[in-house]
Parts: sequence; structure tokens; C-alpha cells
Amino acid sequence: MIIDCHGHYTTAPKALKDFRERQVAALADAKAPPLVPNLKVSDDEIRETIESNQLRIQRSRGVDMTIFSPQAGGMAHHVGNETTSINWTRACNDMIHRVCTLYPDSFVGVCQLPQSPGASPAGCAAELQRCVEELGFVGCNLNPDPSGGHWTAAPLTDRSWYPFYEAMVELDVPAMVHVSAVTNPNFHATGSHYLNADTTVFMQLLQADLFADFPDLRLVIPHGGGAVPFHWGRFRGLADMLGRPAPQDGLMRNVFFDTCVYHQPGIDLLFDVIDVDSILFGSEMVGAVRGVDPQTGHHFDDTRRYVDALDLAPDDRAKVFEGNARRVYPRLGSTAG
Amino acid sequence: MIIDCHGHYTTAPKALKDFRERQVAALADAKAPPLVPNLKVSDDEIRETIESNQLRIQRSRGVDMTIFSPQAGGMAHHVGNETTSINWTRACNDMIHRVCTLYPDSFVGVCQLPQSPGASPAGCAAELQRCVEELGFVGCNLNPDPSGGHWTAAPLTDRSWYPFYEAMVELDVPAMVHVSAVTNPNFHATGSHYLNADTTVFMQLLQADLFADFPDLRLVIPHGGGAVPFHWGRFRGLADMLGRPAPQDGLMRNVFFDTCVYHQPGIDLLFDVIDVDSILFGSEMVGAVRGVDPQTGHHFDDTRRYVDALDLAPDDRAKVFEGNARRVYPRLGSTAG
Repeated sequence: MIIDCHGHYTTAPKALKDFRERQVAALADAKAPPLVPNLKVSDDEIRETIESNQLRIQRSRGVDMTIFSPQAGGMAHHVGNETTSINWTRACNDMIHRVCTLYPDSFVGVCQLPQSPGASPAGCAAELQRCVEELGFVGCNLNPDPSGGHWTAAPLTDRSWYPFYEAMVELDVPAMVHVSAVTNPNFHATGSHYLNADTTVFMQLLQADLFADFPDLRLVIPHGGGAVPFHWGRFRGLADMLGRPAPQDGLMRNVFFDTCVYHQPGIDLLFDVIDVDSILFGSEMVGAVRGVDPQTGHHFDDTRRYVDALDLAPDDRAKVFEGNARRVYPRLGSTAG
Repeated sequence: MIIDCHGHYTTAPKALKDFRERQVAALADAKAPPLVPNLKVSDDEIRETIESNQLRIQRSRGVDMTIFSPQAGGMAHHVGNETTSINWTRACNDMIHRVCTLYPDSFVGVCQLPQSPGASPAGCAAELQRCVEELGFVGCNLNPDPSGGHWTAAPLTDRSWYPFYEAMVELDVPAMVHVSAVTNPNFHATGSHYLNADTTVFMQLLQADLFADFPDLRLVIPHGGGAVPFHWGRFRGLADMLGRPAPQDGLMRNVFFDTCVYHQPGIDLLFDVIDVDSILFGSEMVGAVRGVDPQTGHHFDDTRRYVDALDLAPDDRAKVFEGNARRVYPRLGSTAG
């Protein structure tokens, strides 16, 4: 069985986008009450968006199941206030739940969180609990920069995040660390901000003792860990200079990288330097890079081809494609497979 | 001959640090006049800092010459105002000039720029001209984020930078894109901010037509190009999605990556995906990572070993170790070698 740990509902029905537009428009009117989601979307509409996109591609690539969450760029936690974020987040997560209910063998939910600049992360625990306990979700996406590219929040190792980590551990769900849209013109969301966030958070974790405080906390850093594997020697050397444990020992039992690296040499390097126990298969399809690589004739984001080309031992292949995901997302065990 | 394109004076005499401390202290007193550099440092003091550090290591690694600039983390353009930055920059550049005068065969100067948050980049042209025409420097270090990790400046492709690029082209010198210290607690300077800046600027360049406007402008992106080579497929795919030229065609005649990647698999990947004409040998020694890799028994930043292990064809080896540097820094031709 092959589980893709990283898929977003980038093709959600137009009604969701329309709701968001009305919600944002209402923000301009100080007297308007917050817009509560009340979307009218038929099952057929959802089937159309999924069957012509994610499910079609999933099947064509021989992938069995996707751990599925709202569009990352759409989370846009910087828009409005905490109430805005709560309403938008519920709308997005409920749409994921609709997909997972229609296709329980092919999609399992991971939730967006109602983060907001300046709001306490503790406020996200209720939505996490709702999604896990009521909707059967298996994890969440945690944004280390709710400001949208201005990096005004505290590092993920700051104690202000701890109440939320307590909720994660209590529910036994991991977080994928994933930023969203940017308003800072220095950054391109998928071209630099996503990769920068991955690298930034890894270094925050390397500097602190978060996993001594939360030995069961699990974080997936997507996009192959940003710049980290390419600079693995740098991070090993910095850990040494800072008097920190080597990253392999201090972090890689709690931190996992996915395989969203869109060419063979990158995947080769990833598996060369990172232990196979810390790598989860992922593609972020349909996502940031949708075209066909003229050098291979295949889609850039068809990451299964790169992993297959590694010629892994059967046990290692099973870990990357399934076993590691079930270990990191243990709630998969009872909801899918 | 082997030229290291990336070295900083991280071991500068104490008098320089003392001046900086006095300068920063004076900022607290609104009535104090700006402190103008007037450093008393003997040639012997400079010899001591260089011969026991950079020159010793350079020789032990069989490197002939280093393109040498002030400590990157010390530039700290976010401190004080433009006048602060001008005085500090002159002090740092003059110290580099002292080193290059004492060791003309081993060190060639690259200057810090008097950038300051909110100040026009055009104001840096005078110091660049002084360093190139009076001090014999061959390039500069350009900080894309003078705010120190808050990313408040315009992207490097914004027209506000153009007057400075005009000065660079007129003087026929390149810039290494290099950030400095951070005050944003999300970032670790050498662990994430440096790599993020490299990735960020590459994506800025991919989105714009800077090199159509300045076909002779040359930018060195250090640290192996940040996350870019590891995600080369992603950048090729994003260029395709954005309707931009493939990066190899659109950028890599003007953009160069150094070899400051501190392990063999990273260097292998760099040379696998980036054309040899776009790679300059560099080590950033004595710099961010000073320890010995327990896996190899050699210093992490002894990047010559990794390049030697590639077993390049003689012509390619000559390009990476010398020819490309002379092409990117043409003023090397008349001042060294």
C-alpha cells in the first residue's frame, strides 16, 4: 500500500472560494457581523473536483491513499482576526471531511488550524479536537508564520506553543509544519517562503529542547526538509558548534521529511543523508508545480517515480510508502488501510 | 591556481570590535556626534590574526588566494542609521585593505556596503567606487535584507536597486548576495537566515527581468545557492508555470553559486544539476562551521576535499578553482595571479 502524506484540496468547489471572498469583503465593513460558513455544495460537485483531479492522478500513479488537508496557500492566517480564521478554518476542514466521507479508502483528513497573528496557539486546540474526535482527522497543518511572510510570531520552540502541543500529544496526532500565502513582496510562496520555513523551523528545533519536553511530539517538515538535507553537513557542524546533539540523534526521531522534491538528484540526496525511518512519501499533488518535466516526460510532482528509481530494499520501501506514515499518524491505523 | 571566492575577516583585530562597541554605545546618546573610525592597529597585529588563521588554513589546504571581505555577520546594517553604517563600513573595508596590502598574493578585497534600512541603495555607490578605484577591491557584498531578518526592503529586482547596479556594471565588479546578523528570533543567522536569503533572492531573480535590463550584472549566491540545487526540479517547474525562461537559460549566465556546502553528497548534487560554468570554489573559512566532521576526520568547511573527490575533467576543475572566478571578478586579472 502507498500512502501520500502530503495532499491539499487545491481544487475545492467554487462555493468555498465564494464564501472566502464574501468573508474578506465583510471585513471592510466594521459594522458587519462575522460571516459564518453555510456552504451549499452537492456531493456531485465534490466528486467532480476530486475524480477529475486528485483521485484520477492518485490512481494513475498507483497511490492508494492521500493524507488530505485544505489548500495551504488558502489558509492565509494573516487575513482578518481570530474570528475570521475560526470561521474560514471550519469551512475548509468541513470540506475536507466531505471528501473523506465520500472516498474513505482514498482520503484521510488533516486539518487547517484557526491561527491568527498575535492570537495564542492554545486557541487552536478546540478545532483540532473537533476535527480529530468528530471528523476522524489524523493530524494538522501548523503554520510557523501566521503573519504571511513577516515572521512576527515566536519560534515554534517557544513555550507559547506548548498548550497546543499538549493537545496534539493528548490526541496522538502529528503536525505538518506548513506556511501559507505571503504578503511580503520579498518572498514567493511556493518558490521561497515554503522552503525557507522548512529550513527555519528545523534550525529552531536544533537550537532547543522541545522534544525533551514533548518526547512524543511528531512534526513533519515538508518539501524534503527545505534546504536541510542539501546542507546536512552544515547542520551537523552547527549542532557541534552550538553544543547541541547531532541532528540525527536529537531530532530525527520526532522530525520527518517528506519526498516533495521534484527531481531525481534531490531524492537521491535525501535518501543518501537522511535515515529511511525519517522519510515519508509525499507529492503535494495537485500543488505548487503542475507541469511536465521536459527532461523526463513525466510530471515534476510524480515523486513516486523518483522513489521507485532508488531501488530500495523491500523493508525500506514499505517504510517510506506506508509504515512510517502509520507510525507518525497512528490514527490512520483505525480509520484506513 | 586555486581561488577561494568566499572568505570573511572573522578574526579581525580587537580594535575593530572596540570601535564598533563605542559606535553603538554612542547611538544611545542623541547628542553625541557620530563616531568616525580612527583605528590604531599595527601591521604585526594584522599579521598575527591572518597568519594564525586564514593564511595558515589556506596554505594547509593548498588554496592560493581568497577573495576577502569583512565579517558578514558583523555588517549588521540594521544598527543605527545610514551614517552609522557609512562609518562602520569604512572601518571594516579599510581593515580588509590592510590585509590585502600585507598579503597581495593571498588576499584580494571585496567590500561591505553602507546599507541601512530605508536608505536608498544608490547611496552605496560612493563606497563601492572608493573601494574599487582607490583600494583595488574586485567586488562587493550586497545585503538583500538590511533590516536583519525582518525583510522590509524591496526585492533585489526592484528598480530602487538599479542605480547601484549601474555603478557595479560601470566598475565591472560583481556582488555576492550576503545577509548579515538577525534580530528576528525566528531565524538563526548561519543556520537558516543565510540559506533562506540565498533561496529568496534566486526566486526573486527567476520572477523578474533584471538581467534583461543589466546583461552584464553578475551576482554570486553563496552557500551553494541555498536550497536551490536540492530543489532544482521545483525551480524548473515553477519557471515553466510562471511563463519564465528555464533558470539555466534565463539566469545562470549572470548568477553563480559557490561551493560552501559542507558535505560530499551536497557537493555531488550541486555539480550534478548546476552547469560547471556557474560554480565558483568557495569555503567561507574561517566562518560559520569551524569543527571537524567526525564522519571524515576533516573540517566541515574544507570544501576543496569535496571538489577534488568529484574527479572533474582538468578543464572543468580549472574553471571551478580559477577560471570562473576570473570571469566573474575580472578585476582579479590585473591585481592578482
